[in-house]
Amino acid sequence: MAVQLQRPPVAEACIVLCCLACGLSVPDPRLREALIQLETSMQTGGQMVLTDAEQRLDTVMLKMKRAEMTKAEFPPAMHFFQARHLIRTSPIFSLLQKMPKGAALHVHDFSMVDVEWVVKNATYRPHCYMCYTDSQSIRFIFSSQWPKRLQYCSPWTLLENLRAKTVNITDLDNSIMRKLTLFTDQDPEVEYPSQDAVWRRFEQTFLAVWGLVTYAPVFRDYYYEGLTRFHMDNVMYLELRALLPEVYELDGSTYDTAWTLKTYQDITRQFTAEHPDFFGARIIFTVHRGLNASVMTGVVEKAMKLHRDFPDIMAGFDLVGREDSGNPLWYFRDALSLPAKKGAPLPFFFHAGETDLEGTEVDQNLLDALLLNTSRIGHGFALLRHPVARDLSRKREVAVEVCPISNQVLKLVKDLRNHPAAALMLENHPIVISSDDPALFGASGLSYDFYEAFVGFGGIKSHVGSMKQLAINSFRYSSLTPDQQVKALALWQKRWMKFVSENDFKKEENIYFSP
Amino acid sequence: MAVQLQRPPVAEACIVLCCLACGLSVPDPRLREALIQLETSMQTGGQMVLTDAEQRLDTVMLKMKRAEMTKAEFPPAMHFFQARHLIRTSPIFSLLQKMPKGAALHVHDFSMVDVEWVVKNATYRPHCYMCYTDSQSIRFIFSSQWPKRLQYCSPWTLLENLRAKTVNITDLDNSIMRKLTLFTDQDPEVEYPSQDAVWRRFEQTFLAVWGLVTYAPVFRDYYYEGLTRFHMDNVMYLELRALLPEVYELDGSTYDTAWTLKTYQDITRQFTAEHPDFFGARIIFTVHRGLNASVMTGVVEKAMKLHRDFPDIMAGFDLVGREDSGNPLWYFRDALSLPAKKGAPLPFFFHAGETDLEGTEVDQNLLDALLLNTSRIGHGFALLRHPVARDLSRKREVAVEVCPISNQVLKLVKDLRNHPAAALMLENHPIVISSDDPALFGASGLSYDFYEAFVGFGGIKSHVGSMKQLAINSFRYSSLTPDQQVKALALWQKRWMKFVSENDFKKEENIYFSP
Repeated sequence: MAVQLQRPPVAEACIVLCCLACGLSVPDPRLREALIQLETSMQTGGQMVLTDAEQRLDTVMLKMKRAEMTKAEFPPAMHFFQARHLIRTSPIFSLLQKMPKGAALHVHDFSMVDVEWVVKNATYRPHCYMCYTDSQSIRFIFSSQWPKRLQYCSPWTLLENLRAKTVNITDLDNSIMRKLTLFTDQDPEVEYPSQDAVWRRFEQTFLAVWGLVTYAPVFRDYYYEGLTRFHMDNVMYLELRALLPEVYELDGSTYDTAWTLKTYQDITRQFTAEHPDFFGARIIFTVHRGLNASVMTGVVEKAMKLHRDFPDIMAGFDLVGREDSGNPLWYFRDALSLPAKKGAPLPFFFHAGETDLEGTEVDQNLLDALLLNTSRIGHGFALLRHPVARDLSRKREVAVEVCPISNQVLKLVKDLRNHPAAALMLENHPIVISSDDPALFGASGLSYDFYEAFVGFGGIKSHVGSMKQLAINSFRYSSLTPDQQVKALALWQKRWMKFVSENDFKKEENIYFSP
Repeated sequence: MAVQLQRPPVAEACIVLCCLACGLSVPDPRLREALIQLETSMQTGGQMVLTDAEQRLDTVMLKMKRAEMTKAEFPPAMHFFQARHLIRTSPIFSLLQKMPKGAALHVHDFSMVDVEWVVKNATYRPHCYMCYTDSQSIRFIFSSQWPKRLQYCSPWTLLENLRAKTVNITDLDNSIMRKLTLFTDQDPEVEYPSQDAVWRRFEQTFLAVWGLVTYAPVFRDYYYEGLTRFHMDNVMYLELRALLPEVYELDGSTYDTAWTLKTYQDITRQFTAEHPDFFGARIIFTVHRGLNASVMTGVVEKAMKLHRDFPDIMAGFDLVGREDSGNPLWYFRDALSLPAKKGAPLPFFFHAGETDLEGTEVDQNLLDALLLNTSRIGHGFALLRHPVARDLSRKREVAVEVCPISNQVLKLVKDLRNHPAAALMLENHPIVISSDDPALFGASGLSYDFYEAFVGFGGIKSHVGSMKQLAINSFRYSSLTPDQQVKALALWQKRWMKFVSENDFKKEENIYFSP
């Protein structure tokens, strides 16, 4: 295996050089160079030895990044909704799309596929009913009979009837699409003036898509399409946070959680068989943190059973929903301690620190996730504010799943150069990059978030080695067994080498920089 | 002396506890409590032992802070221009105003006094001429004769004539005031859409006030008034970055740099004599970083001579102007190495890292400032992105002068909870809080910046001990000799005890929380 997994110790070198620097008053250019090199080598991928071809690629990407930085409008400093069209035309972005990025470890079940597919495919199926809620959202249901009216909703309309009566169907479809995503052409600051406002809309949008994606035929196709989207974006493996809802049929009958999990397993196997360069997907079962502590005990027991019954597909357990308004992890400590107490391991992948409520009970989730022996930390936006948690995460290699666009859209940070992951990347903290809810944010796959990481908080110094390390991290910190990791890395390595050789700009560098 | 200066080592405890935490899978509440305590104790002032009265004060301030955080509009998350009126009515702010905050170590010469004083006092003096520039700014000059017309400016108007002809003098004065500060009632995002725009305006405003404050009588009164403002805000000592310009008289004659420095010395002595609870001020001679490297050699030699001739008042040397567009420190390395080479110490107090140009030459200033043996770092906004520089700054106790409102107004960070000093404070990095250019930002003294530090990036966990430590830091990291520091700290300690006893809310707590 050519891939190095361990992170080499740099603290030692730092102490030596820093002490050297202590006594000086006239700057020695060699010492300066050594310190600059030291700092560069400390970052994510900083010690990666690049091949000649990788170095050539790096030179080109650095030029591209410099060009990007001198533009009047620097996308990572802008809201993603306003930056998206700039990113799409950026040559770095098209390279990053082609780059084998490894795995996406923090993606939610019902935001994998862009809303255009949802509207053009799902809502065009027969028996699709829609209604408008009092709060200007929409709801859907598929039903063989006319469905019972919902509270706080207009009467149901059969969509095929509505479309038959509508002159401008494109307008209608666009208006439906707008209800299924947070993305907007309007000024996002005006549309979503506060965290409360954007989260309210987030939840409404989630409910809007619910009736579509929990209809069994759509459920299957949506997941298959989701795998396709990530595969097309050169992502090889997914860990999907999934609510495993009751999925329904046209006659109103429903399937239980085990069916849903098994369906994920079947479709994953089918997709992987059809796409041998795709490694697969695993499911992190999630429940809403709004639950009662007493209810949680049963849920954790159910999760333990699923983990036992479906060891291949089921990776572990997590809580979802806005941390600021939901119950903190510590509130559920008894239920969450059950697996350890019973000696039946249930890996945890807790969301923690997706907040700016510094120092409050909610903010305590980070340390509690670590104390509950979480395998990774979802978001960990507040980690810089918790030196002990940061230390623990580093020493125990509990990777942070960094989702830059999500954090920006949900108003934790405006200019992505100020994202805390900038500091984490510069000291090679165990992190992976992920996309959380790409469809909700008007993104897709993983490339947009890789762009923000590479061009935004990576700064000039992040390079091809950094991206390579992030890809390697995504397997290293996955829930795959060591054996599976070796296999996945070998597969990725092959694709990586192909990517590098196909993008060897030795002779054609000018293509990108011709006037 | 009751004041403890050294920072106790906590890393040891961290390693022990973190290792303990490694092996556990069921969270032990005692370990959890210990880790929370450890994290709390690691922050600035985290190991400060509080008296009973201080603890009572802390309880009250914590309640106030919690109340502040639950409000719909949380001032540190807002632009200071829009938050100022909220801060002014905040009970925490009025406590922080009364609190003896120690020293302000990063303040510029011509932004000490609010523009109302400048307009109502300076521009009302006889022989004051004003003109309008093509770029909608204004210029002033005092002259016994009608002054020669400036390029790119309207003809001069004698202000007393203009006022005599003007019906609404308040409107006129307000319009002048608006030209002398960045503060605006308009939407600051619209007024200053980019860093370039806000810096352009910053420089114009600076030029606008120049003709007023370099007129000898105003120069003296302005500085005296500046000391008064900081003294009234319960700041005891100042280190002022001063350009030491040629100061002029009505007949056009000018004084040299030595005169200007000596004038600062005389007025400081006078003010301190008149206010025995004020400790004094020292000057950091500054020049613009736009200079040529060849010119810099002469400037540094001049600075060395001033430092020799005026050891009491002259603290050291610094470069000013926007780092992003000016020359980096390394460009001046030969000139800046002169003092060390000649064995004639000239302390440096370099601005460094006031940028988000990650990884560029400008961003290199932080490491270079340290290599050039700087005594402190001005701003250091980018320090989190430089693990080696951060380590050096910590190990060598090179304090970072954090100016939150300045960083926000100059568009480095929007929500002050995301200010990098949050992370620095949580690990007791050597920092001081300062106000940079309070008059330009519509602030005054030091209390507004203390508010942002305490309520904003301090989070719930920062407490009275944190504020006390910041005040102590401001002496500890000043240019004062160890003897002077002991004296200043004793004076501060006396005022601090008085403040605590006068604000002992033992019996009157309800005053602050009555409905």
